[in-house]
Amino acid sequence: MTGFVSFVSSGPGDPELLTVKAVKRLEAADAVLFDDLSSGPILSHAREDADLVGVGKRAGRPSPKQDHVSKLLVDYALSGATVVRLKSGDSGVFGRLEEEITALRAAGITYEIIPGVTAASAAAAAAGIPLTRRLTARRLQYITGHDVTGELPEDLNLTALADPNATTVVYMGKRTFASLAELLVTHGLPPQTRALLALAVSTPDQVLSHHTIGELPDLLRGLQTTAPVLILYGPLAVPE
Amino acid sequence: MTGFVSFVSSGPGDPELLTVKAVKRLEAADAVLFDDLSSGPILSHAREDADLVGVGKRAGRPSPKQDHVSKLLVDYALSGATVVRLKSGDSGVFGRLEEEITALRAAGITYEIIPGVTAASAAAAAAGIPLTRRLTARRLQYITGHDVTGELPEDLNLTALADPNATTVVYMGKRTFASLAELLVTHGLPPQTRALLALAVSTPDQVLSHHTIGELPDLLRGLQTTAPVLILYGPLAVPE
Repeated sequence: MTGFVSFVSSGPGDPELLTVKAVKRLEAADAVLFDDLSSGPILSHAREDADLVGVGKRAGRPSPKQDHVSKLLVDYALSGATVVRLKSGDSGVFGRLEEEITALRAAGITYEIIPGVTAASAAAAAAGIPLTRRLTARRLQYITGHDVTGELPEDLNLTALADPNATTVVYMGKRTFASLAELLVTHGLPPQTRALLALAVSTPDQVLSHHTIGELPDLLRGLQTTAPVLILYGPLAVPE
Repeated sequence: MTGFVSFVSSGPGDPELLTVKAVKRLEAADAVLFDDLSSGPILSHAREDADLVGVGKRAGRPSPKQDHVSKLLVDYALSGATVVRLKSGDSGVFGRLEEEITALRAAGITYEIIPGVTAASAAAAAAGIPLTRRLTARRLQYITGHDVTGELPEDLNLTALADPNATTVVYMGKRTFASLAELLVTHGLPPQTRALLALAVSTPDQVLSHHTIGELPDLLRGLQTTAPVLILYGPLAVPE
């Protein structure tokens, strides 16, 4: 009997930001394949006899190859196991689900995706700011700061990203935001545009700080952290 | 003693897509002010003696004025109550939090925002599709189909919205998507661009259907529904 894979979104870090459904899937799993960011107390929902397998990718540390993760997922499912593939944030947002889904489909294994809370929502919530606002922030957009080569993607839509009436969230932007900020200003976004820097969102190590896109590059250059870095910019005012 | 307000995101509809924290806040609340879309089984987490007050806005039906909702929220908090303001989806995404936050701040009432699962994540998850993909869908963006006048906003960033390498999600777009689709095609987005129509996401009435942006306008014209309508378009293929 073939098993089943649940891609479970673990949310931004706070175990209480798991959904009820995510908790249930963890409780029912024979095996949990988890990323570094979705480890810790979140895994305490798993059964004592469940296999817990770390397959994390994290900046600056060597990590298992994607092929290896996909193969492990397929092997567990083919053995008949109920498998949870735990991904941080919302697994559909920069979770690189496609390689693993492709491997499952090729092996004839069924799967489901359990959506979750993405780090952007948690960062803005922690700062007391809505991500969208009538009139001033009608469009919300998410990008990553780097492509597979680790550099800022070359095909950025700068008209979209330099729009003063959008809230933009940059995931994994620590190393490349300085270059991005320069491009944004060249494309007309004022350097004094508000920015929120969020580290380790929703965890005990969370740090939030308010800046402008002009100030951030210098600050990021001096920033020593292994925590996940999220940068939000746009009309990010706390309502008065 | 002044009370406290939690803006609690109820997720897209499925009670199991509440976060653990949302459930806790509901269980602790003296009063719950809820929208129509976050009612039903979700409210069963509230205490039996809690005040449950519907303040919903819903297309086509008269609803309490925003001023009235803000006043109610302030009055409950000033009476010393622990208040949950329940908003569907992720409250920071098109949840119009700003008016209510402004009213709370003016009255000196503290608040928190509990983030949640937005309908876009749940719709894509239900369809088995990641919202972002390496190379083909590197940017994810959310807009609403109408502004306060009920019409398509005039200041749309069409370069952003007609980008074939982004996944775009249109909230509340049923009535105006035909006009938007026309603008998108004029701005170079191919009419055969994939689109996912999602009704009543994550509820027992959920309907998902795959189309193109060229086909959708005719289909929406004939669509009789009071369910919330979400339209996603872009490189929305299920991985092979």
